[in-house]
Amino acid sequence: MPKVVCPWNLITDFVTDAFKGYGIPEEEAKMCTSVLLESDKRGIESHGCNRFKPVYLDRIKAGIQFPTTNFDIIKETETTAVVDGHNGMGQVIGTKSMQMAIDKAKKYGMGMVVVRNSCHYGIAGYYTSMATKASCIGLTGTNARPSVAPTFGVEGMFGTNPLTLGVPTDEKFDFNIDCASSITQNGKVEYYARIGEDIHPGTVIDLNGNPVEGDSGVALKKIRQGTAALTTLGGIGEALGGYKGYGYALFVELLSSVLQDGAFGKDLDGKDENGNIRPYHLGHFFIAIDTNHFLGEDLCRKKAGEIIRTIRASRKMPGADRIYTAGEKEYEIWKSREGSGVPINESVQGEINAVRDELGLDYTFPWEDNYVPYEKEMKITALIEND
Amino acid sequence: MPKVVCPWNLITDFVTDAFKGYGIPEEEAKMCTSVLLESDKRGIESHGCNRFKPVYLDRIKAGIQFPTTNFDIIKETETTAVVDGHNGMGQVIGTKSMQMAIDKAKKYGMGMVVVRNSCHYGIAGYYTSMATKASCIGLTGTNARPSVAPTFGVEGMFGTNPLTLGVPTDEKFDFNIDCASSITQNGKVEYYARIGEDIHPGTVIDLNGNPVEGDSGVALKKIRQGTAALTTLGGIGEALGGYKGYGYALFVELLSSVLQDGAFGKDLDGKDENGNIRPYHLGHFFIAIDTNHFLGEDLCRKKAGEIIRTIRASRKMPGADRIYTAGEKEYEIWKSREGSGVPINESVQGEINAVRDELGLDYTFPWEDNYVPYEKEMKITALIEND
Repeated sequence: MPKVVCPWNLITDFVTDAFKGYGIPEEEAKMCTSVLLESDKRGIESHGCNRFKPVYLDRIKAGIQFPTTNFDIIKETETTAVVDGHNGMGQVIGTKSMQMAIDKAKKYGMGMVVVRNSCHYGIAGYYTSMATKASCIGLTGTNARPSVAPTFGVEGMFGTNPLTLGVPTDEKFDFNIDCASSITQNGKVEYYARIGEDIHPGTVIDLNGNPVEGDSGVALKKIRQGTAALTTLGGIGEALGGYKGYGYALFVELLSSVLQDGAFGKDLDGKDENGNIRPYHLGHFFIAIDTNHFLGEDLCRKKAGEIIRTIRASRKMPGADRIYTAGEKEYEIWKSREGSGVPINESVQGEINAVRDELGLDYTFPWEDNYVPYEKEMKITALIEND
Repeated sequence: MPKVVCPWNLITDFVTDAFKGYGIPEEEAKMCTSVLLESDKRGIESHGCNRFKPVYLDRIKAGIQFPTTNFDIIKETETTAVVDGHNGMGQVIGTKSMQMAIDKAKKYGMGMVVVRNSCHYGIAGYYTSMATKASCIGLTGTNARPSVAPTFGVEGMFGTNPLTLGVPTDEKFDFNIDCASSITQNGKVEYYARIGEDIHPGTVIDLNGNPVEGDSGVALKKIRQGTAALTTLGGIGEALGGYKGYGYALFVELLSSVLQDGAFGKDLDGKDENGNIRPYHLGHFFIAIDTNHFLGEDLCRKKAGEIIRTIRASRKMPGADRIYTAGEKEYEIWKSREGSGVPINESVQGEINAVRDELGLDYTFPWEDNYVPYEKEMKITALIEND
């Protein structure tokens, strides 16, 4: 069954109305929609509409995530703040926190906000893009459900902990490296299982310390049962630098917990001692550094552009057409989708229809026979793109 | 020929006098010695006494590095500063810059100092340890001679660019991940060549995009000729996340240049257009974040300790005795060497003798027949160890 493209204006309004229907106040619903759809705009489908119902709406319904976000500032200084998110919407907590870090950076040069008791905040690269659009260097990271084993270990002790870094450039899009500190992530293993691709050797380790091979669906099952774990960037053991990815992952684990007195490791698995579901209690950090407190935004953008263009122009591997820099592929996907919309697969079509019906919302979709083209005007602003 | 252990008091005083003999003012010579020997204390021999003569003294003599350091603050705000090092001693520039970042963090919560026109600053982990001992989170990075290829490229376009991160803990040593963002580094390839170990497949790529295999000495020669390059953490191509290590390396390249208007990429190869040697014009960055501007040093240290101890206690691979956390191995090497001294190989013994004779200094060494045990008292403080 092919995917069906849903226009941006339609999906944006529908998702926002659905978030509102689940009790999220309008302004905050818009924040959630913006983070969610930015993921689809960049082609990171694992974090976009695919997760709309299962990761956000279903968790609100299950009572382990609250639609109203009590953004509670525990402590604040010129450049720093500690926030308790009280299990509200991660995208709201993330957006407000990075905005706070940016505001502090604009005033004092730097800003850092750390958060505890948050929920899944969407793509980390959304927040670094907020920073780079505001002429700041941006850094963010989050802890996550334990699924990654340390070097010489076989047990999932920490999450796929992205270390996400953005730098403003003079191009249409900024430098933005947004990736897990493990080689792969559960979402990608799920995807391989779906398309029938074998697991990449070295990305998953079993309890005997051997790489899990073969069927990705089997690998995924083992990870979920705790009889296998993801490996850190650099792979199993030390020979190819696995301890480096482990070190970066642990840095993210530390910064998502130690400054804000937040949960860590196995306490992030969303279950209490009796195995009942509970909030995930995630921690995040957000750092903004204002380029104008150094030698200025223009110089930073120009020089960053020169550096990445020089690298792209360097000698390629035979068979490779291009050398990319971080953020470039995502920008090109956005440009290819900008005029049309987001491709929605059959399973997500069903989820969207069900949410619409449950909430009694007045929408029809392109995959339905009775589809009435959605005419409402809207300005599509993708955060990935510089104006 | 076995290595000979040189006591800490002797090597410390000798190295300091030698730096002074090359024109470095006394207080700055002490800084240079502290950074240099901290590397040997941690067992990172590639950056310690092995580099004393070739990387520092010989470059001073060649006129591409100045013994007196003009630490020139171009711009300064509450939390930020831009420094021009005017090709002075990297260790002096690094020490002063991280101290400045720490002082700013103590006052405003965060501090960041960026540098241009510096020289090799020794082990990056020295500066993050300065931060963690001062109850700060520390981050630093530096660019370096181009030797690493981007994903899908085969040409060395940027350096081994360490992204180095430290967090205070309640243990005898802090968390400190100090490593190149490439899988391996030139120094390690040199070491493999010396001990006759083959190159690890995937760590070096040739112009055809194939992994260089076999003799490490041959691989090293190719890297120096520009017919091979080091690979980024995650390896060749995208399958095992090579683009992630590439992204981190490029972030370090950007932060070592774009905020301070510094040199980058191939301009860091230490040669002018006619092939004559010239200063390396390196750039660095230093970030300090004060834990007491969040929920406090004690909580940070305690919680960081809990996190790393929990991970160390997790299930190990069969055959693996221990799970380490970053900084632990280095601390154990220091404890094993603390009571004796630094092991010096024959080639470095010769360099040390030659420098002593050249400067007419009054020292004898344990590898000499006329050695007179060095009695001078000194307090050995290793930056790696918490008091």
